[in-house]
Amino acid sequence: MTMRAWLDFLLYDWLKAEQLCSRPRFEDHGRETFSQVLDTCERIAREKYAPFNRLVDTQEPHFDGERVTLPQATHEAWAAYAGSGMLAAAQDYELGGMQLPYTVEAAANAFFAKASVSINAGLLTVGNANLLMAHGTPLQQQVFAHREFKGEWAGTMCLSEPQAGSGLADVATRAVPDGEGSADDPLGPRYRLFGNKMWISAGEHELTENIVHLVLAKIPGPDGKLVPGTRGISLFICPKHLVRPDGQLSGERNDVALAGLNHKCGWRGTTNTLLNFGEGRWQPQGAPGAVAYLVGQPGQGLACMFHMMNEARIAIGMAATMLGMAGYEASLAYAKDRKQGRALSQKDPSSPPVALIEHADVKRMLLAQKAYSEGALALMLYCARLVDEQHTGTPEAAAEAALLLEVLTPIAKSWPSEWCLEANSLAIQVHGGYGYTRDFPVEQYWRDNRLNMIHEGTHGIQALDLLGRKVVMQGGAGLKLLATRINQTIEAALQQPALALYANSLAQAVQRLGAATKAAWATGQPEDALANTTPYLQAAGHVVLAWMWLDVACSAGQAPADRQAGILAATRYFHLYELPKVGPWLEVVASREAVCRDMQPEWF
Amino acid sequence: MTMRAWLDFLLYDWLKAEQLCSRPRFEDHGRETFSQVLDTCERIAREKYAPFNRLVDTQEPHFDGERVTLPQATHEAWAAYAGSGMLAAAQDYELGGMQLPYTVEAAANAFFAKASVSINAGLLTVGNANLLMAHGTPLQQQVFAHREFKGEWAGTMCLSEPQAGSGLADVATRAVPDGEGSADDPLGPRYRLFGNKMWISAGEHELTENIVHLVLAKIPGPDGKLVPGTRGISLFICPKHLVRPDGQLSGERNDVALAGLNHKCGWRGTTNTLLNFGEGRWQPQGAPGAVAYLVGQPGQGLACMFHMMNEARIAIGMAATMLGMAGYEASLAYAKDRKQGRALSQKDPSSPPVALIEHADVKRMLLAQKAYSEGALALMLYCARLVDEQHTGTPEAAAEAALLLEVLTPIAKSWPSEWCLEANSLAIQVHGGYGYTRDFPVEQYWRDNRLNMIHEGTHGIQALDLLGRKVVMQGGAGLKLLATRINQTIEAALQQPALALYANSLAQAVQRLGAATKAAWATGQPEDALANTTPYLQAAGHVVLAWMWLDVACSAGQAPADRQAGILAATRYFHLYELPKVGPWLEVVASREAVCRDMQPEWF
Repeated sequence: MTMRAWLDFLLYDWLKAEQLCSRPRFEDHGRETFSQVLDTCERIAREKYAPFNRLVDTQEPHFDGERVTLPQATHEAWAAYAGSGMLAAAQDYELGGMQLPYTVEAAANAFFAKASVSINAGLLTVGNANLLMAHGTPLQQQVFAHREFKGEWAGTMCLSEPQAGSGLADVATRAVPDGEGSADDPLGPRYRLFGNKMWISAGEHELTENIVHLVLAKIPGPDGKLVPGTRGISLFICPKHLVRPDGQLSGERNDVALAGLNHKCGWRGTTNTLLNFGEGRWQPQGAPGAVAYLVGQPGQGLACMFHMMNEARIAIGMAATMLGMAGYEASLAYAKDRKQGRALSQKDPSSPPVALIEHADVKRMLLAQKAYSEGALALMLYCARLVDEQHTGTPEAAAEAALLLEVLTPIAKSWPSEWCLEANSLAIQVHGGYGYTRDFPVEQYWRDNRLNMIHEGTHGIQALDLLGRKVVMQGGAGLKLLATRINQTIEAALQQPALALYANSLAQAVQRLGAATKAAWATGQPEDALANTTPYLQAAGHVVLAWMWLDVACSAGQAPADRQAGILAATRYFHLYELPKVGPWLEVVASREAVCRDMQPEWF
Repeated sequence: MTMRAWLDFLLYDWLKAEQLCSRPRFEDHGRETFSQVLDTCERIAREKYAPFNRLVDTQEPHFDGERVTLPQATHEAWAAYAGSGMLAAAQDYELGGMQLPYTVEAAANAFFAKASVSINAGLLTVGNANLLMAHGTPLQQQVFAHREFKGEWAGTMCLSEPQAGSGLADVATRAVPDGEGSADDPLGPRYRLFGNKMWISAGEHELTENIVHLVLAKIPGPDGKLVPGTRGISLFICPKHLVRPDGQLSGERNDVALAGLNHKCGWRGTTNTLLNFGEGRWQPQGAPGAVAYLVGQPGQGLACMFHMMNEARIAIGMAATMLGMAGYEASLAYAKDRKQGRALSQKDPSSPPVALIEHADVKRMLLAQKAYSEGALALMLYCARLVDEQHTGTPEAAAEAALLLEVLTPIAKSWPSEWCLEANSLAIQVHGGYGYTRDFPVEQYWRDNRLNMIHEGTHGIQALDLLGRKVVMQGGAGLKLLATRINQTIEAALQQPALALYANSLAQAVQRLGAATKAAWATGQPEDALANTTPYLQAAGHVVLAWMWLDVACSAGQAPADRQAGILAATRYFHLYELPKVGPWLEVVASREAVCRDMQPEWF
């Protein structure tokens, strides 16, 4: 089955995406317009992205001290993407948008991630603009966000600093008011930034005429000191080139200097940068510091940024998923084509060799990839559907969707990053030695995918977020809601004899997850509860994926026979080979096992 | 604890390596001579290998159509290694050897694998020469093996072919008698080879004046056809440059042509080649075909080659282990040095950040790496000790050691390849974004290590070997012996209250392994039994590693407090976080679950 067929099945047979068109915002849409968008994106991805995926890996971005050079193909891919209107797909008509449901937008963008994950740089620009639509002033939206939706300018998110990494409490970039009258700048209260930001994706390039940096920084108090902790963080727009209130470039360079490109082992089509703000290379408007405009209220920077971070996290999950899917497709094609070895039942050594796909262990590696990547795609679209519900559902449904998204976001980010990476490793393994060479695409997928467990919040950060915050907030309402939704699926599955076995195994797993959550927090001490966050994250992820497969299987009744058989096999695989891993993971969580946290440095 | 300290502990406190010196072959040795060897190798590895590990990754071998160029550092590393005498370390004094126990040889060689796995190319040369010492004629040994032990010539093993990969039954390289008198050549029955060999490590270079290829090929029958299956395979010596019976080069090039270098995603310091035998580029002695000499009997090629393959498999396990160890050391150092975030108990945001190693989840990642890589090293040395027993023990002990080695070899090859790769991924994760950049060494370890699940027999091949052959041969005697040895450890552990818990969990796991083996084979049908070979391999590997840790823990009583605490923590980690995975793996084996083998290509 092609990825498109799987997308169509998930969108229409499973998620009933067409039903969204009964809502006013989407009333002009229908399966036909959705298909047009999917067709267009599939075509652009095939023509402008996929053929250049290896090229952008070998021709890394180059910085000569003055400017960054990217391959011509990257420029053309960006032009085609911006030209497709996808940057504004979800926006209002009046902004040049399509008012497309996010579910369909996410599905359409998946093609780009699969064709070339690191050329695919649109996600941060859209996320940046969406943040401004939520937290910016009308003029900030008009000047910055609208140009980003048109693809004229690009966007970044600047959180990490070299000395602090994931530790945002230690952000040391300073934002000082830019002298007299700065509070009344039409573009927002004007500040000067001084500091360094690390790991900034697409932080410097010439794909667009300007780059809109969204920067976390701290405004010094009256004593000149920065407020410790995350409470002191504010959010700023800091454009690469200065901008007039009418949105035109003033012609002056802002003091945002590229200090260096990070040379990574994958994801090489996108620049990844260390940026210096206010180092003194330029003196915009004759004064030191990078000119920047406050977004929202002082001290609310992290809360605002979470708008973008949550989007970015789901986008990373989708990127990881699509890398998994790309490796699955490549290794499936190879296994069908390559003849090697004989069936166990074949005793005659002079018989011709069979295709790799005839061997049980190769089938296992393909089925695992199918279960990981197709299952992850289901999760990503399920989350996308929740975003639509949050934006266009009834107030009650919207609140529920928002709550469920809170719980699912760390899983949607981390699970595909871990298991679709494993899928890529299996794709290499199916190819044997060839898979390890650069003559085949799978080793690059594997290298590209390794980044996804790190950027936009490491696995460890997601795990802390889930067990430390998401499942306990509002008295555990999020986890309760998740359990309710899973139980609805279990009820439905119990009606189908072929699925009852899995309904029971899932019911048991959900019960264990709840019990382990309670046991972890039984002492009320974070040190106890959070002694085993990653095993908890892994367990919760596997429960959610087992739920996804069972829910998808419940909708497979009307599908063609081969598809139905494939869904049932993947569901069976996931429930028999994967779901039982939850037991060992939750065991250490529930017992608050302390061997890791008690380790002393000198014992290593 | 440094790796050297861990090696010393394993060698002396655990394996009692000094006791070997009571055997006549090793009577000149003692802890002092062992230490000298370890010191020398540690120093050469530090000076000649480690500093160039990144260099050989970026300056890949280059082939200009005429000759292969390797970095100067590789030439110097080879010279230092050959000069150390390590190629002949285990050989008789009369061959210039040291009569060193293999256990100590393996321990000493570990330093090279850790410093730069792909510069470290000695292993195939020694394995090649060892095969000839077992199966070659006295003159073949003198001409070829002795020069390899001196490092004058290097060796390869040529098994795979482009069209057949792991499917050795389909070897299509032809060996035809080289005309009149060829049967009486002093170097062995002389043939001409015609065919192609793929994935040949160190297949072409100028580190040595000659290269000794050991080649699997088929001698056509009277009808001119090749015998189907592996029964038809014979083994040949095929030197790059022709050799006179006195061992001098004749000055003529043999027709072994480099068709191309494979460009891999790691392990780049060693050439990996496609070789054409008898393509007609050269006409040695005026006739077509590559000149080659039969080793052993016709049709016995695979049996002979297994001598080398088993050595190579254990060497790959050691290479994987050392990559795991290298990543562990690098990430441990980073985690101690890097300050980031605060302890959960620290409520004051103005307190200084703590070292990464203070966070429970970072400790988990370090402890997992410790358990994987230090545990794998224990297994590798345990296997090496079995080799010594096989060669110098009483006949009964030697036979037992040989049997146990048969069972452990697929595990010793596969387990470190899988779990020390996982360790390398954790080493990246500890570094955060830095780990993913080429400014830190860990991403290269991860790329280098990915090859180990493929070469010298893929994971799938090892899994078939274990469940299809090793645990059922001789009526299951190998598995029974393994269980007996494990039970001895369990008995010893039950005497120590701190270890009783683990003794019980291990006892249960061994019992399950035996039961699952029986259940898998209950129908007597290979298709049923071998429907889930990889989960079986994984389960057996985890049982063996849990046994290793428990056995090591039994010997820890006299160790310094920190070391003892470290061993107990790793044992606890392995038994609580890892061993329980055995349950799910064996479940599908025991039930002969058929979802993978029943998959149809059109269901994917």
